[in-house]
Amino acid sequence: MKVETVGIVTKPHQGDVARAAAGLVDWFEARDVTALIGEDAAKLLDRPEAGVPAEEIGRRADLIVVVGGDGTLLAAVRLLNGRDIPILAINYGGLGFLTGVTLSELYDDLERTLAGEFVADRRMMLEVELKRGEQTVASHRALNDVVINKGTPSRLIEVEARVDGEYVSTFRADGLIVATPTGSTAYNLSAGGPIVHPDVQAILMTPICSHTLTNRPIVLPESVSIVVTFSYRGDDGVYSTVDGQVSLPMVSGDRLVVRAAREQVQLIVPTGKSYFEVLRGKLKWG
Amino acid sequence: MKVETVGIVTKPHQGDVARAAAGLVDWFEARDVTALIGEDAAKLLDRPEAGVPAEEIGRRADLIVVVGGDGTLLAAVRLLNGRDIPILAINYGGLGFLTGVTLSELYDDLERTLAGEFVADRRMMLEVELKRGEQTVASHRALNDVVINKGTPSRLIEVEARVDGEYVSTFRADGLIVATPTGSTAYNLSAGGPIVHPDVQAILMTPICSHTLTNRPIVLPESVSIVVTFSYRGDDGVYSTVDGQVSLPMVSGDRLVVRAAREQVQLIVPTGKSYFEVLRGKLKWG
Amino acid sequence: MKVETVGIVTKPHQGDVARAAAGLVDWFEARDVTALIGEDAAKLLDRPEAGVPAEEIGRRADLIVVVGGDGTLLAAVRLLNGRDIPILAINYGGLGFLTGVTLSELYDDLERTLAGEFVADRRMMLEVELKRGEQTVASHRALNDVVINKGTPSRLIEVEARVDGEYVSTFRADGLIVATPTGSTAYNLSAGGPIVHPDVQAILMTPICSHTLTNRPIVLPESVSIVVTFSYRGDDGVYSTVDGQVSLPMVSGDRLVVRAAREQVQLIVPTGKSYFEVLRGKLKWG
Amino acid sequence: MKVETVGIVTKPHQGDVARAAAGLVDWFEARDVTALIGEDAAKLLDRPEAGVPAEEIGRRADLIVVVGGDGTLLAAVRLLNGRDIPILAINYGGLGFLTGVTLSELYDDLERTLAGEFVADRRMMLEVELKRGEQTVASHRALNDVVINKGTPSRLIEVEARVDGEYVSTFRADGLIVATPTGSTAYNLSAGGPIVHPDVQAILMTPICSHTLTNRPIVLPESVSIVVTFSYRGDDGVYSTVDGQVSLPMVSGDRLVVRAAREQVQLIVPTGKSYFEVLRGKLKWG
Repeated sequence: MKVETVGIVTKPHQGDVARAAAGLVDWFEARDVTALIGEDAAKLLDRPEAGVPAEEIGRRADLIVVVGGDGTLLAAVRLLNGRDIPILAINYGGLGFLTGVTLSELYDDLERTLAGEFVADRRMMLEVELKRGEQTVASHRALNDVVINKGTPSRLIEVEARVDGEYVSTFRADGLIVATPTGSTAYNLSAGGPIVHPDVQAILMTPICSHTLTNRPIVLPESVSIVVTFSYRGDDGVYSTVDGQVSLPMVSGDRLVVRAAREQVQLIVPTGKSYFEVLRGKLKWG
Repeated sequence: MKVETVGIVTKPHQGDVARAAAGLVDWFEARDVTALIGEDAAKLLDRPEAGVPAEEIGRRADLIVVVGGDGTLLAAVRLLNGRDIPILAINYGGLGFLTGVTLSELYDDLERTLAGEFVADRRMMLEVELKRGEQTVASHRALNDVVINKGTPSRLIEVEARVDGEYVSTFRADGLIVATPTGSTAYNLSAGGPIVHPDVQAILMTPICSHTLTNRPIVLPESVSIVVTFSYRGDDGVYSTVDGQVSLPMVSGDRLVVRAAREQVQLIVPTGKSYFEVLRGKLKWG
Repeated sequence: MKVETVGIVTKPHQGDVARAAAGLVDWFEARDVTALIGEDAAKLLDRPEAGVPAEEIGRRADLIVVVGGDGTLLAAVRLLNGRDIPILAINYGGLGFLTGVTLSELYDDLERTLAGEFVADRRMMLEVELKRGEQTVASHRALNDVVINKGTPSRLIEVEARVDGEYVSTFRADGLIVATPTGSTAYNLSAGGPIVHPDVQAILMTPICSHTLTNRPIVLPESVSIVVTFSYRGDDGVYSTVDGQVSLPMVSGDRLVVRAAREQVQLIVPTGKSYFEVLRGKLKWG
Repeated sequence: MKVETVGIVTKPHQGDVARAAAGLVDWFEARDVTALIGEDAAKLLDRPEAGVPAEEIGRRADLIVVVGGDGTLLAAVRLLNGRDIPILAINYGGLGFLTGVTLSELYDDLERTLAGEFVADRRMMLEVELKRGEQTVASHRALNDVVINKGTPSRLIEVEARVDGEYVSTFRADGLIVATPTGSTAYNLSAGGPIVHPDVQAILMTPICSHTLTNRPIVLPESVSIVVTFSYRGDDGVYSTVDGQVSLPMVSGDRLVVRAAREQVQLIVPTGKSYFEVLRGKLKWG
């Protein structure tokens, strides 16, 4: 792969992240690589003319460099809209469970990446469809998870899950997480779910604060289709939230259909770091 | 204690509960005991003239009989506004962790209660004050718990807790539960907290889905004063919810002050049932 | 498949199980199917001449019928020594997480099985090798799990796990469970591990009472090779236990090598019961 | 309190601990305080004549200084055999959940202690009696916990607990922990139990890897008497272990009776460190 155009995706409202991004732009231009940045980021760098619409980054780049935390990576994945190009993500503050490059290792890793010396991890995504009667009212991809839950804690929600048409359980709980292996170390972990290696072909289903104490996280085959419905008597609304970023209001009778997406995400793995090494660092083992 | 006036508190909108309540009214009147029922319940029983305002029940009754689940009991406790009279609660559907009398045992237990042959468990309550600057903007008592959490799952809340002025931790979590021993078997249990016997003089502090995996439920002495503040960058609101019934919107800078209330609740214990027997039944042990 | 010889495996020392087995023998013989029973069981049935050595059952049968709990099934699997014939397991007391046929459904299911109308679930097994220096001192297959732990609780064991040569973690814990998806609902569940559907190609690694609170159950791809070593300063011995039945004493420097076995187990699924239906029954959901 | 004789308790077999102890002896003698050390420690310091029997330390000292981890502190408590004198414990490696002084803060804290400027935390202990028929075959005090469990994992133990004569539950589990608030951050925490502040007057009962998923840690009033019995069909023995140090073999029919001891332990609290500050450090919060 010869990289001609790189898209740089940042959290635009943080000054230090913007400075890191400015350095990246210069670095790429010195190597005759076109660097696309978003309009907000361009203004922050005092180069407003350099900014392009976010959609254009997603459409034109051969490589995406993400500077930020998990949220920024998840936003970059959304920009790509399923296009199959690699993403190099640099942790910049926050937990950053998904990725392992730190800022100090950045330029070495970039050199290797431009030279084609990188390994990309293929990560499964979920395809999430919100169905109302015969209509599909929303459709999204999730790299981490989709969560169905309610506004406030005053009333219990009952979430019914079916897997390939088979009834699984009605979870009386705060909500239900459907997660990828990548997302297993995000919200799923806080809710008591297991760590699932990204090479396991599986989808996780983890209830949040289940009232039935014997309801436990379930790891399902990647091939399944999950349909989630709910029953709720509170008046503060029920939502599905995709990757913690997109919130879909749900009404009674709605079905949330979740399955593995055809598209995957290519995450560039920093040289020499194993999955377990990143995990140990993030979870402060040992 | 000679019972002259009994207050009957029900969930008014359920037909079968109303029928049970009607039976109770007749039973008490046949024994020359005045039975007060609420206005909604009275209409449902086709005796609208018999209904009195809820506050009057709380003020006049020598004994409260609750027909319903935990929610109805918690509402009855609120009616009493701290008055120290005994409550006999009959489980009618739902989990009913707090109480142990079932409908079939009801009239035997009532006979004994009117004859003064009962043991009342004294249960601790929490006094919850919401403070904004110098003002106390809300003040409530909780028999189970007060929960601070946010509207939707899109953003993390950071909840800081101080105990007697000492900093404890900043919980990055879905929320924080402060519970009584009575409430330990309610929401606290779903969130991973322990069962605390009601005779233990303690207050529980249990984070909900903490991102820091080493944050764990903490059992504190009953004498402490807990101050909870929060930091939140989402735009969907933060609430304190008292006993799952009263929702208090919070704004940045608010302090939630929680300590043991001076008043206690007297729960009449069904004859011959131990705390552990009720627990085994509810949790389906063995 | 035409069944000519059936092997009946029971827990020999229980009278009622033996009576059930006697009924089975008659039932098969009435259908011209040879029924092999073990020597102990034969004595209990007052037909000592009918008994054959256990190994012969494993070698000659076209179908195995297990009457007992999970332990009896696990013993039957061991008898087969990797031979690929179907097993019909009847729950007889105990939790019996693995299997779903109850005694009352037995003869209907047997009719269908002899008529070839059955679905067999293929369940992954683990191949467990205990290595000492250059030697393999023991080798076993596990349908549920292999557990490494120490005699008494007086001292901590440190269990180091490597996956495909990569260092994962040193678990300071009571022990470590390596489980199949089938075994996920056995000991793994008690230790806080997730439920893993048997169609997920995965191996679980779950620490038992880890002192490091951030150590959590990990679900690994089925393709991995796991090497477990330990460090222990107590004097009460360290053991690996295969399926809760075979106990292998370990000495310092020993390596336990665990990977998916080539052989699988064929479990006959009772007609019309889904995995989730069995699960709901066992875990008392709803 | 004027300290005239100090007892120094160390883990004798570690060179660096011994050197720290030697420094302490000199420091005390320079202040005209008699410093008693054990015979093993004295040999290690090349002053064999200075050593006294351990029992003598427990009997003569006005103050105990412990250099080591939790295990050494627990051993020092055993030496005192209930005598009510203060203990200053210095963490030397290991988790050291119980105590908060580090070596660098030692001499400052010692100066203050000799000057009487210290606060001693009174910590509850458990009185543990092993009864066989009419006989009490063993009697111990525990600062952390007493654990009943079995040798190896091959078979389940059933542990029945009664509280003040009331049946609580039969735990089908790996074992059962009965712990003090002080011990709540030791083994109890690994087994999923809560953190209990040492000022809460309570005893914890936490099952280890319970097969019944609804069995949960229970916090009981300090006033209770707990009787634990067991049923076990394995042949590898059942033990009660006091503070992880004393192992009591149990036979069928034995009763373990646990209640709060009359004696307490006085732990000197390092100046200016709150309970929560020590907790945050140990659990790596924030």
